[in-house]
Amino acid sequence: MSKRFVVIMAGGRGERFWPQSRLHRPKHLLPIVGDKPMLTQTVERLDGFVPPENIFIITNREQREAVLSVCPSVPAENVVSEPVGRDTAAAVGLAMVLVRGRDPDASLAMLPADHVIRDRDGFQTVLETAFSAAEREPVLVTIGISPTEPATGYGYIHRGDEAMEIDGRSVYRVRAFVEKPNLETAKRYLDSGDYFWNAGMFVWTAASIARALEEHTPGLYQGLEEIRDGLDGGRELDAVLEEVFPGLDKISIDYAVMEKAENVMTVESEFDWDDVGSWPAVARHFEPDERGNTLRGAVRVTGGEDNIVISDSDHLVAVCGADDLIVVHTGDATLVCPKDKAQDIKKLVKELGDDPRWQSLM
Amino acid sequence: MSKRFVVIMAGGRGERFWPQSRLHRPKHLLPIVGDKPMLTQTVERLDGFVPPENIFIITNREQREAVLSVCPSVPAENVVSEPVGRDTAAAVGLAMVLVRGRDPDASLAMLPADHVIRDRDGFQTVLETAFSAAEREPVLVTIGISPTEPATGYGYIHRGDEAMEIDGRSVYRVRAFVEKPNLETAKRYLDSGDYFWNAGMFVWTAASIARALEEHTPGLYQGLEEIRDGLDGGRELDAVLEEVFPGLDKISIDYAVMEKAENVMTVESEFDWDDVGSWPAVARHFEPDERGNTLRGAVRVTGGEDNIVISDSDHLVAVCGADDLIVVHTGDATLVCPKDKAQDIKKLVKELGDDPRWQSLM
Repeated sequence: MSKRFVVIMAGGRGERFWPQSRLHRPKHLLPIVGDKPMLTQTVERLDGFVPPENIFIITNREQREAVLSVCPSVPAENVVSEPVGRDTAAAVGLAMVLVRGRDPDASLAMLPADHVIRDRDGFQTVLETAFSAAEREPVLVTIGISPTEPATGYGYIHRGDEAMEIDGRSVYRVRAFVEKPNLETAKRYLDSGDYFWNAGMFVWTAASIARALEEHTPGLYQGLEEIRDGLDGGRELDAVLEEVFPGLDKISIDYAVMEKAENVMTVESEFDWDDVGSWPAVARHFEPDERGNTLRGAVRVTGGEDNIVISDSDHLVAVCGADDLIVVHTGDATLVCPKDKAQDIKKLVKELGDDPRWQSLM
Repeated sequence: MSKRFVVIMAGGRGERFWPQSRLHRPKHLLPIVGDKPMLTQTVERLDGFVPPENIFIITNREQREAVLSVCPSVPAENVVSEPVGRDTAAAVGLAMVLVRGRDPDASLAMLPADHVIRDRDGFQTVLETAFSAAEREPVLVTIGISPTEPATGYGYIHRGDEAMEIDGRSVYRVRAFVEKPNLETAKRYLDSGDYFWNAGMFVWTAASIARALEEHTPGLYQGLEEIRDGLDGGRELDAVLEEVFPGLDKISIDYAVMEKAENVMTVESEFDWDDVGSWPAVARHFEPDERGNTLRGAVRVTGGEDNIVISDSDHLVAVCGADDLIVVHTGDATLVCPKDKAQDIKKLVKELGDDPRWQSLM
């Protein structure tokens, strides 16, 4: 059997979790949900599925030291820094080059670093099916999450006919990837049973994804060949990336490949999954008090409901008579934001980053 | 001319300004509005009207040191500590005893420590009229503030006929003190021109207020005589107060005397006045930004209106997409409260005071 690898994409900036998350300490390096950083949980979720030396982590220079410290089991040479962010297609391509360097016949999974999945066994079972499918036929496999509610915050995968059955589990052709729907459409998706949430988790052989990149995004592929040639010629990875990466197209793997390719499949999965993309999403993972308040640390709410209040020190945060607020206190910055405005936190952080007075808080 | 004194009542706890105000650092010791503590401003407002040795400050033991430090011009022996709070009637009685000890024929004004009055000349002019009235006839004079809006947060003085004219200014009989009205009633009061705001500022001779206390609250008066006898017998003030004060009736001067006495007059005044009883009231004294936000210190509001945001250090407080909030950050505690719930801050502070974890924040 050819070698299996897992490549974790850990390059996010996590603006949506400011002020807890910072440029050097984004969401995947924080224990946003659970007792360990999200990335550590992601690595530990692979325990028994692939050996640590078959795990790559693609991050950036600012975060590399922190990634190494929260993932002590992963060999340091497997933690790779992109010199600049070039979106997911470039990261997928880099992963392909790295994995092929280890084993030309390898298969690999691409996983986000910062999602919540508690059902490790269920997750590994689905991953096993996805690898089997990708190794059996030259297809691009995406993991489809069975929706549990008509969520409007996720993209969906519209499945087609069953193409394979592996270990009693169906692998479907993908009819289309669809954008985040409105509530009415999301309800229709949920009722039909033909739509899965797109979790951004992919499995393929290095050969399959190389072929797909070459076909659908030849400019990027040429850059990837330059990286491979550089490594084959004995050059240092960092030096090659420094030279080639900035010139790569900045495009997501979804736009570059998945939405164009004909040979895309999806494996249905039932494990719990949440990308916890915002403070309100975090609250779903904690037991609220009897008035719906999610409280962490030195906090107190009097006469208010459904707030998320977090203090990461012994500094008291007291909320009086307010409902549906996010209040997050850290050593040097405090955020106050209504839950229904959480999507604006990114904009706030951008504004702060543009202001010389507050750049130290990025 | 008999001697004139001013007695400033500086015993408040200022719960409504938590977390900036604390038990040992209440509102009158803070520069809530202006650059100096409110008490300092109150003392300086008397500059040229009475000499500093004729100013008494009645405070409590916890605050006495701080009072001395923010009022360096007032002689230390004039800063008197109540061993326990016994409301304003006891404070008025104590003031009477102290002032009579200096001059049996003296007159005195009782003033709150923490109000905002910018028009010092206008204030002193009215005070002069009030003293003249109180010295001309044995009456209890209260200063009536001409209302500028139909405020529902103040008690009102319903004036009767003109009783005297002094320096061209009318002194009216008081028909009644009335409780805080609803908005409709407040509008009627404003339109009638017969109602003034009750600012809790009184002027009388020591003899007049002694007689009134003896008549309307004889139990309290007996305690005051014990204090006088103790002082006449050469005992230390603190020791006498320690013995007598806890036994005094706890009642306001309004209930104990003003609402019962027949000989109450009011002087109309036009100087600016605000008791700034809450965070929303503070905001009236600062220039808001173009979206109505009152901002002090290291704060930033994005996409929100009419907030009050205060940070007393270089800790950034960022408000994102919220309207009409009070957010106050201090070194060890942060408050978040909708402006229309500001009256509940007192309750919050009481709850915190009852919780061993947070007593250090009182």
